Amino acid sequence: MAQHFHVLHQDAGCRARTGLLRTPHGDIPTPIFMPVGTAATVKAMRPENLVEAGARIILANTYHLYLRPGHRLVEQMGGLHRFMAWDRPILTDSGGFQVFSLAELRTITEEGVSFRSHIDGSRHLLTPELSIAIQQALGADVIMCFDECPPAEAERSYVERSLALTTRWAARSKAALSRRDQLLFGIVQGGRFPELRRRSLEELREIGFDGYALGGLSVGEEKAVMHEVMDACSDLLPTDHPRYIMGIGTPEDLVEAVWHGYDMFDCVMPTRNARNGMLFSSQGRINIKRKEYEADQGPIDPACGCYVCRTYSRAYLRHLFRSGEILASMLNTHHNIAWYLNLMERIRAAIASNSFAAFRQSFYHQQTRTSERSKEE
Amino acid sequence: MAQHFHVLHQDAGCRARTGLLRTPHGDIPTPIFMPVGTAATVKAMRPENLVEAGARIILANTYHLYLRPGHRLVEQMGGLHRFMAWDRPILTDSGGFQVFSLAELRTITEEGVSFRSHIDGSRHLLTPELSIAIQQALGADVIMCFDECPPAEAERSYVERSLALTTRWAARSKAALSRRDQLLFGIVQGGRFPELRRRSLEELREIGFDGYALGGLSVGEEKAVMHEVMDACSDLLPTDHPRYIMGIGTPEDLVEAVWHGYDMFDCVMPTRNARNGMLFSSQGRINIKRKEYEADQGPIDPACGCYVCRTYSRAYLRHLFRSGEILASMLNTHHNIAWYLNLMERIRAAIASNSFAAFRQSFYHQQTRTSERSKEE
Repeated sequence: MAQHFHVLHQDAGCRARTGLLRTPHGDIPTPIFMPVGTAATVKAMRPENLVEAGARIILANTYHLYLRPGHRLVEQMGGLHRFMAWDRPILTDSGGFQVFSLAELRTITEEGVSFRSHIDGSRHLLTPELSIAIQQALGADVIMCFDECPPAEAERSYVERSLALTTRWAARSKAALSRRDQLLFGIVQGGRFPELRRRSLEELREIGFDGYALGGLSVGEEKAVMHEVMDACSDLLPTDHPRYIMGIGTPEDLVEAVWHGYDMFDCVMPTRNARNGMLFSSQGRINIKRKEYEADQGPIDPACGCYVCRTYSRAYLRHLFRSGEILASMLNTHHNIAWYLNLMERIRAAIASNSFAAFRQSFYHQQTRTSERSKEE
Repeated sequence: MAQHFHVLHQDAGCRARTGLLRTPHGDIPTPIFMPVGTAATVKAMRPENLVEAGARIILANTYHLYLRPGHRLVEQMGGLHRFMAWDRPILTDSGGFQVFSLAELRTITEEGVSFRSHIDGSRHLLTPELSIAIQQALGADVIMCFDECPPAEAERSYVERSLALTTRWAARSKAALSRRDQLLFGIVQGGRFPELRRRSLEELREIGFDGYALGGLSVGEEKAVMHEVMDACSDLLPTDHPRYIMGIGTPEDLVEAVWHGYDMFDCVMPTRNARNGMLFSSQGRINIKRKEYEADQGPIDPACGCYVCRTYSRAYLRHLFRSGEILASMLNTHHNIAWYLNLMERIRAAIASNSFAAFRQSFYHQQTRTSERSKEE
């Protein structure tokens, strides 16, 4: 059994489980959601606001921090935790996904990915070794292997060659690791092909990592494909290691992934949607700029006990959003993060009482009503 | 003597004085600076951040709140304090200055000012009676008479006619007041002409107000003109009423105004400059985006004990600003407000020990070095 992860409780009725992930900056209860702090800040949130909203761990992006302000600068400033004044755990991704989604003029070779910065057009070569060096300089608690992330529509033959490359890069990532205090996770690729996913996972297990992640999901594929991939890997994943699905997702995605036995998640959805005025609520998603909230004295979500719901009316939040006020982004982000983290807390409680399957049922029932309402908008 | 204001201490060496202003939402020590919360939010600050930064009273803009979300809506939501979750005192201006600086197609008549909204082009007529009705609906602790604010370069004959109109509007403002819990201040106009300023003030004293403000300063006139006007009114102002100079200013303006015996101030400078990366420091003003701060581990101001200076490096703040992060506006605003309010605290302490003249001397000495440094930028 891995020393850094323990399953605390296996739900008697499904694959969902609770666990505890040990990191240098503290223990994390799983299943957990990680708010995204791309450029050494979760947008519009002070660190203590994150703590107040219940954040236990955040994610930062290697690609962005490498380009600006530069990992050597962050290292010189005492590492990412000190730089951004966040003393709880941090996970950094490997830069793989961002290179494929943001950078320009990419060329993939055995050595790595050559690309142009989306900020200033400068040329760079990101390799497994450099990705690990960056992540070591940043000093996150959990770091990721450098991977290739093929597009959702890539052909099987391409995905097959790509996952083999990702495996070789994973071995190089592990070999490059010199710090002993960081946990290194491997990233399973294989696109929409369950068989290739299983092959990727087997190859990664062969190498051996502190945790296993599914990459390349939520990149435009059908939900059914996402669920099939979750399902295909679930049995093959070692039960005593943390299982992370990268870049998901909607509240429904999280519930589904937990049901399949996954432990860790990250997504920009709660923060990005907040800045666009889309707020999560137990009564359905709310577009705060709508006229119907003009004189609404109620909180965003009557079932939510977060700072924003305790303090402000929908009418005030609508006014702030319409006026383009920075406080709109601040309060909306706070609520959405608190709402996601509260969902994870309820998920953990449901698992602990062996009732996650029932929780999932009632959650879907509620979300069906929600999405019907969303369609009306 | 006015019941709502007491001079606590008159500096033995100059006209500066400390005082206490009583309002329904609490007592305010003077001299005081009021951060500007135009649209029912001090931009990028939660209410508790304002308290943390030392804010005792904030200013909100009648013109903006009248146009959006509308004073009747704010009233329906329980008033401005409740709407924005701020339970300390609020001062609202009358809308006069904003109508002249922001609105389009203004027409001034005896009745009031007809204008087009800068938001949606809709037509409105703002009168002394409507301004008071709006300010009553918002429910601020201190409200202002509706005034005409002529441009800095206006001719004497125009300013003379204008101040007479402002006096008649002041009388109408007072007559329109029906709430008894709000303090009503008169606004002295008269442009750059000391004689007209004194005439305006005498006419306002005749009517009688809870406090007296100088309006129409810091609208483009020379500093010497500003100081001359401050000086011209100082002796004529009743000593037992609060004296407010609207819309100033720089730290130097505040020190100069206190030296002339004024008690209250507001300005967008600390908040607006913060969003542009200009930060106040005892070592001079800082443009945080400058390359020299790239790896600077120090705080914005080593002499500042605010949350931002206790927590973050110049290097981090530079990174946030360059990355266009919302947190840059949040932290920069917090520091600048805390810095202004700390300056006022030091001013009050200097007066209390009869040493404000010496404080002013050393402050100017420091600021001279500052502005020399600023010129180099």
